[in-house]
Amino acid sequence: MKIGIADTNFAWVDMASIAIGIIKENSKHDIERYTVPGFKDLSVACKRLFKEHNCDIVIAMGMAGGASIDLQCAHEAAMGIQMVQVEESKHIIEVFVFQNESDDDKELFDIAKNRTEKHTLNALALLKGKEELTKFAGQGLRQGKEDRGPINLE
Amino acid sequence: MKIGIADTNFAWVDMASIAIGIIKENSKHDIERYTVPGFKDLSVACKRLFKEHNCDIVIAMGMAGGASIDLQCAHEAAMGIQMVQVEESKHIIEVFVFQNESDDDKELFDIAKNRTEKHTLNALALLKGKEELTKFAGQGLRQGKEDRGPINLE
Amino acid sequence: MKIGIADTNFAWVDMASIAIGIIKENSKHDIERYTVPGFKDLSVACKRLFKEHNCDIVIAMGMAGGASIDLQCAHEAAMGIQMVQVEESKHIIEVFVFQNESDDDKELFDIAKNRTEKHTLNALALLKGKEELTKFAGQGLRQGKEDRGPINLE
Amino acid sequence: MKIGIADTNFAWVDMASIAIGIIKENSKHDIERYTVPGFKDLSVACKRLFKEHNCDIVIAMGMAGGASIDLQCAHEAAMGIQMVQVEESKHIIEVFVFQNESDDDKELFDIAKNRTEKHTLNALALLKGKEELTKFAGQGLRQGKEDRGPINLE
Amino acid sequence: MKIGIADTNFAWVDMASIAIGIIKENSKHDIERYTVPGFKDLSVACKRLFKEHNCDIVIAMGMAGGASIDLQCAHEAAMGIQMVQVEESKHIIEVFVFQNESDDDKELFDIAKNRTEKHTLNALALLKGKEELTKFAGQGLRQGKEDRGPINLE
Repeated sequence: MKIGIADTNFAWVDMASIAIGIIKENSKHDIERYTVPGFKDLSVACKRLFKEHNCDIVIAMGMAGGASIDLQCAHEAAMGIQMVQVEESKHIIEVFVFQNESDDDKELFDIAKNRTEKHTLNALALLKGKEELTKFAGQGLRQGKEDRGPINLE
Repeated sequence: MKIGIADTNFAWVDMASIAIGIIKENSKHDIERYTVPGFKDLSVACKRLFKEHNCDIVIAMGMAGGASIDLQCAHEAAMGIQMVQVEESKHIIEVFVFQNESDDDKELFDIAKNRTEKHTLNALALLKGKEELTKFAGQGLRQGKEDRGPINLE
Repeated sequence: MKIGIADTNFAWVDMASIAIGIIKENSKHDIERYTVPGFKDLSVACKRLFKEHNCDIVIAMGMAGGASIDLQCAHEAAMGIQMVQVEESKHIIEVFVFQNESDDDKELFDIAKNRTEKHTLNALALLKGKEELTKFAGQGLRQGKEDRGPINLE
Repeated sequence: MKIGIADTNFAWVDMASIAIGIIKENSKHDIERYTVPGFKDLSVACKRLFKEHNCDIVIAMGMAGGASIDLQCAHEAAMGIQMVQVEESKHIIEVFVFQNESDDDKELFDIAKNRTEKHTLNALALLKGKEELTKFAGQGLRQGKEDRGPINLE
Repeated sequence: MKIGIADTNFAWVDMASIAIGIIKENSKHDIERYTVPGFKDLSVACKRLFKEHNCDIVIAMGMAGGASIDLQCAHEAAMGIQMVQVEESKHIIEVFVFQNESDDDKELFDIAKNRTEKHTLNALALLKGKEELTKFAGQGLRQGKEDRGPINLE
């Protein structure tokens, strides 16, 4: 199978390299990479990875600045990604990191790394079938931070 | 008939198991389950449940965190679900629970359970025909909490 | 001609019955009704009323709660309705009532009734042709409340 | 060539008549008019003006009330218009006036008139070709108010 | 190859001329220009540059006023651009400048110029292939201001 990696120059962490490392450690899938200027360009990169490069799934990585206009742009990027994945019937695992998640560079890097690693494993799982992740259903898993865990009523 | 169940690892209540219990208690419909990482992945799960697994209706379950970016993501997830159901002309019953609905774990669990149960019954009703729910039209029904009831002018 | 009526169980006024009364009083058009749980399910109801039941126009009625998440959901419902009517090239007259329009049950009922009545007449007019409503162009007509009237510069 | 005019009963200025006057003064193009209740109905009017009436361009006019829900509805109307013009590859010149632009009826009328006049001339120019407006590129033109003019660095 | 340039009369900097200068300095690509009144008209200009003029990529330039309604309109413009680029599977490099980025005309001009120049070079790079920009992945590049640079953990 083939995994697409779409990433940006705008991001200030090279998340794609982290994702590629995880894929290579855990599978023998082929990888196609597509780098664009910013996250609003990811939708076309994803579509081309599906249509021209026959990817079975794409991991789309981006980072958003901290102003409210940046969140609006993130929304537009995410809507473009929804359009593509619905049209193609194939998953695009969106790995977005927001500057507002931390004021500290080290912490933001750790969030980006953790989110990328966990979501890359999610992509690998989704390639195995629709119930591969069912064992974790409703378990309060988180990417970028500690798992929340399920509500425990006892 | 076949009912699709799409759910997430992000949610911290296993709503799908509740839905499956209700379906089995109340019908002999087949069930197909598809579990994804988070609610933004539900649109593709729903589309595949329709296209590859021939589901007649899908119940899509997810939970949203309490930050404003989480509500923006919920909106993107919901828009993807609108796109799929409009394209397929088949209902996707969206069962979303928001962390902000309660600070109390027990109460949030009860909301999730009640909303899932009632909406699963709604899905079963919709499979019977377009006027199956007409007897409840304008009755102020609620999922996740007590019914509001209709305005009584007397 | 055939008019579709799409309504919800969530609403706490039975607007569909009001609309059906107005249609019967003023025309001999056939009526098809489709009742769904909430307004986010209206898009599919509308599409099916067009595709499976050959409706020429649909009146889609719903009510929204007063929290900000309810307004977000109303937006998603309205976007689904836009997608369907653009795809089908047929009007969907959206009759949405918002809880925030009045704290008083009686007043909210009157708003719902007035809006439904006037918009049902609008649907009947649109079926007659694209210039049937031109005589009211720019006249500041309102549904749910008194007409505003046009700006009078004299 | 044929110009479509889509307008509403909700608006409290008859902008369509202003637009038609400008078209007749400045061209011999045919005109087709389509009047709908409110701006959320404009998307279908525009699509039908293109598909059934073979218009080459449409001018879509509407006015928005001053509450935040009115701005949400304006957004939905505008998104419907985006969907239609992208699908048809033909311009829809959107002439929307917002109640919040002025508290004064006379001033609001003048804004509506000025915006309609200038945008009608824009529509006529676009029919002449893709570079007809290039001479005004980056000139800070405004409709509804005085031109801003370009940044002058000298 | 052919590069489309879509720009507006509303903008108060002639960004298209800056872009055309950069293209001519750095390539022998053909250029097609399309000027529209405002940024909400860019989606159709882009689609026509792809469909009628066979452009391989489009650079779409616009400026937004400072009121909240202007940001809503910018969102609608950006969504139209997402729709077109997803449909065509071709990049539209969106170069939007917001009045709120600076109160100072000179500074705003410099932002517009810098953003246009850098994004035009991005467009040229994207035409060379999907990994042309990979060397800058995660490097915190910015258009309109100084690069942020990557997080340096040492």
